[in-house]
Amino acid sequence: MDVDKLRSEQDTAPNRLRALAQNRIAIEGISAEIDGGRFAAKAIAGTPFLVEADIFGDGHDVIDAAVQWRKRDGDDWSEAPLSFIENDRWRGLVTFGEIGPWQISLVAWRDLFSTWRRDTKKKIAAGQQVSLELEEGRQLVEAAQRAAKAHHPGLAELCVQLAKATRDSELAEILLSRQAGQRMKEAGPRTNLSRSHHVIDVWTDRPAAAFSAWYELMPRSQTRDPLRHGKLADVIERLPYVRDLGFDVLYFPPIHPIGLTNRKGPNNALAAGPSDPGSPYAIGSKEGGHDAIHPELGTLADFDRLVGVANELGLEIALDFAIQCSPDHPWIKQHPEWFDWRPDGSLKFAENPPKKYEDIVNVHFYRDAIPGLWYQLRDVVLFWISHGVRIFRVDNPHTKPFPFWEWLIGEVRAIEPATIFLAEAFTRPKVMMRLAKLGFSQSYSYFTWRNTKRELEDYLSELIAGDARNVMRPNFFANTPDINPLYLQQSGRPGFRTRLVLAATLAGNYGIYNGFEICEAAAVPGKEEYLDSEKYQIRVWDMEQPGNIRDDIILINRLRREHPALRSFESLRFYNAWNDKILYYGKSDPAANSFLLFHVNLDPHEPQEADFEVPLWEFGLPDEASIEVEDLLHGNHFTWHGKRHRIRLEPNERPYAIWRLYPPGVPRP
Amino acid sequence: MDVDKLRSEQDTAPNRLRALAQNRIAIEGISAEIDGGRFAAKAIAGTPFLVEADIFGDGHDVIDAAVQWRKRDGDDWSEAPLSFIENDRWRGLVTFGEIGPWQISLVAWRDLFSTWRRDTKKKIAAGQQVSLELEEGRQLVEAAQRAAKAHHPGLAELCVQLAKATRDSELAEILLSRQAGQRMKEAGPRTNLSRSHHVIDVWTDRPAAAFSAWYELMPRSQTRDPLRHGKLADVIERLPYVRDLGFDVLYFPPIHPIGLTNRKGPNNALAAGPSDPGSPYAIGSKEGGHDAIHPELGTLADFDRLVGVANELGLEIALDFAIQCSPDHPWIKQHPEWFDWRPDGSLKFAENPPKKYEDIVNVHFYRDAIPGLWYQLRDVVLFWISHGVRIFRVDNPHTKPFPFWEWLIGEVRAIEPATIFLAEAFTRPKVMMRLAKLGFSQSYSYFTWRNTKRELEDYLSELIAGDARNVMRPNFFANTPDINPLYLQQSGRPGFRTRLVLAATLAGNYGIYNGFEICEAAAVPGKEEYLDSEKYQIRVWDMEQPGNIRDDIILINRLRREHPALRSFESLRFYNAWNDKILYYGKSDPAANSFLLFHVNLDPHEPQEADFEVPLWEFGLPDEASIEVEDLLHGNHFTWHGKRHRIRLEPNERPYAIWRLYPPGVPRP
Repeated sequence: MDVDKLRSEQDTAPNRLRALAQNRIAIEGISAEIDGGRFAAKAIAGTPFLVEADIFGDGHDVIDAAVQWRKRDGDDWSEAPLSFIENDRWRGLVTFGEIGPWQISLVAWRDLFSTWRRDTKKKIAAGQQVSLELEEGRQLVEAAQRAAKAHHPGLAELCVQLAKATRDSELAEILLSRQAGQRMKEAGPRTNLSRSHHVIDVWTDRPAAAFSAWYELMPRSQTRDPLRHGKLADVIERLPYVRDLGFDVLYFPPIHPIGLTNRKGPNNALAAGPSDPGSPYAIGSKEGGHDAIHPELGTLADFDRLVGVANELGLEIALDFAIQCSPDHPWIKQHPEWFDWRPDGSLKFAENPPKKYEDIVNVHFYRDAIPGLWYQLRDVVLFWISHGVRIFRVDNPHTKPFPFWEWLIGEVRAIEPATIFLAEAFTRPKVMMRLAKLGFSQSYSYFTWRNTKRELEDYLSELIAGDARNVMRPNFFANTPDINPLYLQQSGRPGFRTRLVLAATLAGNYGIYNGFEICEAAAVPGKEEYLDSEKYQIRVWDMEQPGNIRDDIILINRLRREHPALRSFESLRFYNAWNDKILYYGKSDPAANSFLLFHVNLDPHEPQEADFEVPLWEFGLPDEASIEVEDLLHGNHFTWHGKRHRIRLEPNERPYAIWRLYPPGVPRP
Repeated sequence: MDVDKLRSEQDTAPNRLRALAQNRIAIEGISAEIDGGRFAAKAIAGTPFLVEADIFGDGHDVIDAAVQWRKRDGDDWSEAPLSFIENDRWRGLVTFGEIGPWQISLVAWRDLFSTWRRDTKKKIAAGQQVSLELEEGRQLVEAAQRAAKAHHPGLAELCVQLAKATRDSELAEILLSRQAGQRMKEAGPRTNLSRSHHVIDVWTDRPAAAFSAWYELMPRSQTRDPLRHGKLADVIERLPYVRDLGFDVLYFPPIHPIGLTNRKGPNNALAAGPSDPGSPYAIGSKEGGHDAIHPELGTLADFDRLVGVANELGLEIALDFAIQCSPDHPWIKQHPEWFDWRPDGSLKFAENPPKKYEDIVNVHFYRDAIPGLWYQLRDVVLFWISHGVRIFRVDNPHTKPFPFWEWLIGEVRAIEPATIFLAEAFTRPKVMMRLAKLGFSQSYSYFTWRNTKRELEDYLSELIAGDARNVMRPNFFANTPDINPLYLQQSGRPGFRTRLVLAATLAGNYGIYNGFEICEAAAVPGKEEYLDSEKYQIRVWDMEQPGNIRDDIILINRLRREHPALRSFESLRFYNAWNDKILYYGKSDPAANSFLLFHVNLDPHEPQEADFEVPLWEFGLPDEASIEVEDLLHGNHFTWHGKRHRIRLEPNERPYAIWRLYPPGVPRP
């Protein structure tokens, strides 16, 4: 090897070297960077978004860091400081002002003046002579003044003070003052300014994407006579009931024309009788497909009226987006290339061998279905958006291609960024997470099958940590037309109250399917299916029947609206209550002085009691401190003295308790 | 919104849509992808490299996957299969044939024929009519035959067989045969072939990067008279001793000219006497700098001779790369722009306020030091490479800029890919990890301060998991000239044997600094510094003194060479021994039938005993099975019956035990 030859080549690329020398400060492990920047993180407009990263330089110099943000591909970056936490981790908050695509970038730099101050203070404390150091400090300030892009009055004044100072003691007093530190932080140079590797995308939604209470009903069951098909007009009559319960979103399974071929009968019977309505998921008939209304429900004009009345009442309508077709769907003749055909020329039905679903046909998404089908499906969504719908519950998205969803959600949001998509994917954890990363605003969850204290603590802890925290927003449905949970089949009324409180206070988004409020749990034996399911027949509901839990629903939905802590999913913390049947947790929004604690008896049969710890440490209080507390169920105020207390929860009287804490300095009402 | 208008625009970009529709199979969470592809993973030439990823498609179709690799930017990809493990995780092995830069990429696809076979078997088992299905299966094979890029005799034969089959039973037998499945796996189409988001870089080192035993000595102490400066010629005399101990690498602290200005005296005294040799880390004098040999050690010719003799003996020489300078270093006059100067024109010494290091000056790396200093430092490394050195222990890399290291290591390896860099960074965990990601081949570790069972299990578990597994290769030095561990100061001889065994069998790379073999532990009171440290004076060593642990060192280094399990750092597993003073672990290389177990008494003062579990389950054996075992310290063979056994380890006789297991099918010698 000829080292001299190498040496002669070395000066040809100094600028390349200068470029490589950039980013002297390491910025890595950024919490908002999902899969190396492949996917966008999610935020809520107007709500502070937490950004964390590992930031560190070489050596022992003081560094500083900030997070910057802008509208995607915009020009101007806004900036907020990052603060050191521990172990090289830094943290800051960004608030995105409006919905849509945003970007963040992290910057960090060496803060030479702070390093100088730290070291000079140590030398003075050790009694060392620091005349030269003080001169160096003066030069740092003067250089900052010369380099500042804009006039900074504080810096100018500092320079004037320094010019007048003649003795070391004067120089030291000026340079080591808090004011000089502050001014140099503001206006001093950012030496070795470094930037995070990627600009990171953050999709910002409206608040309803993260905080909403859903009620689900079948429009055709809004009738008092099982032989009379409920209509959209009947649903309009029903809206005040839903609103009075305190819900934000009213969601319908598909309302499109239902196919006749191989129509299912009650309880999923293979053959339907002549008056059986069929499954609303067998979409499409000669009356139309995904952009039509089932004629027995009414007309598009009825639907528009329904949306209008709902909006006036403060309710949003959510529709089902279920891509499968009945064998009678118009697309099958119009676009045979979107479907699978068998060697004998017949249509391939849906199946899960050896089970067959002969009332359903699936489209395929590739081959000649690109681009026609994709645009068609996008236009279905846009069609309902043009009729006032902004929320779509997507049926089984995990059985449709991932690239399709990423494209569809992007296309729709480019036109209507307020659109919310809820992924109804009950499948493996990584598949659910992928759908969330692709852009689904909300996700169905495993909540329905998480019943014990350990299961709930583990699952929730997983959801509020890691990438899930920035990507996946669970919607805790307590039941659905497809899920009549075993727990509720065996729990009676206390269990319904328990599961309601858990769903509504653990997650930001939650929902119930009608019948829950009257503790409906009759099941197909041995299954989590409802007996006489509305999926296959019209049901008449009496929501006034005794034993209903409407008071609980109204109370919980009111507390959700009144207490900012409940909007903050990520603030969830589990605390110690020494009984495995009592789940004990807290939520908080310190900026709004909102601190809540929850005790829930998970045992619907027996009273449970437990000692528990009041988390005084969260407020910097010692174990023997007192704290003011309000019982949000009964309204009384009192004081908890010390950390350890005891609670008893009786399933039939009080299966749960909710407390508001007033730490010192927070005014009581 | 005008949905019709959108519809009319939709056909303008079908190819864009087809491009977006690619990568239908999700490939994510790739173990070898470091920081989203920002850094290269590390592998060893000739050693299987484990690749894991989450791979899954939509729906329920069978998928398959493979890992591909090539030399960086090469044309031809090699390929190995990935296998499903659980929870959507897949795993495969890649073996890179030579050192240098490689790339991997993961591919996955829908396997329509396997899906067809799975479903058709279910239908047949359920007694369903499958004539149409069999026809579909035939068409899949025929389509594969038509689409195959190269002639595949097996596929052609399959088609001939199918053409002759007339009855369903014949078709079923052919299509569902193992042979048809195998042929379609080999030659069938890869539907929806998807590729991982990035091509991932993997830097491949020679084996010594991951598996080496280091011995450190000060050349100037290779003398029998403290007044006679040891020479490189003396070191040559010493080589057989080091080789006989079984070491691979002999490492010297800096061997360059030592400055006179502010030279340190014995025990770090501020003033040196006229005959004091000074610290070898105060590099540079009028005799030269980083590319010169300290005249009292000898000449460059002596060094070349030393390297030659060492290589003949199978020893590699490792040099220290310490960038700091003495105030007498030639660079200071030649390149004042590489140094910091104070307002009075004086040179800025190294300091850690209020401490001052007046025998040392640090270069700075930015401003006018780019590009000159960077090229100069690169050329220093290349200079020693041109003199036969391939291993550099880098002094305090964490106090030099990260971009500098990434550049320097890249430049050096482009010329000599066999170069190994050991990062001597005892600093915060994320900084150490960053240096490993930047390209350092090996890293000093916290091993020196991990003494208890819990500490060792936690630390090692961290090192063999996550990104650390693919990036950081620890080098477990049991002591260094800078670290005289408290544990060894208090442990006596048994503790030295214990720490030797831990260092040499837990990590792939380990080292000792001379004196360890004679249990030297005299300390500056209250510090982890050696008394009369060789850093500041010449010491004369008597390695023959009684109580030395050379037999242990020779034994352990021999076992490391003989047993492939010891080369496999990542195979480390901790097992149950019910005593907190007994560390119990195993290492294995199943391909080489090499299975070892280790018991180490961490208590240097008292005998310890414990029940322990023989990990029969690792070989699929039941708890009551028997297994053949060899005591590698004493050579005797016997049989362990059942899972539970007991061991006693006496600090002065046998502080450790090492066992080789012979599970069923593995021949005993």
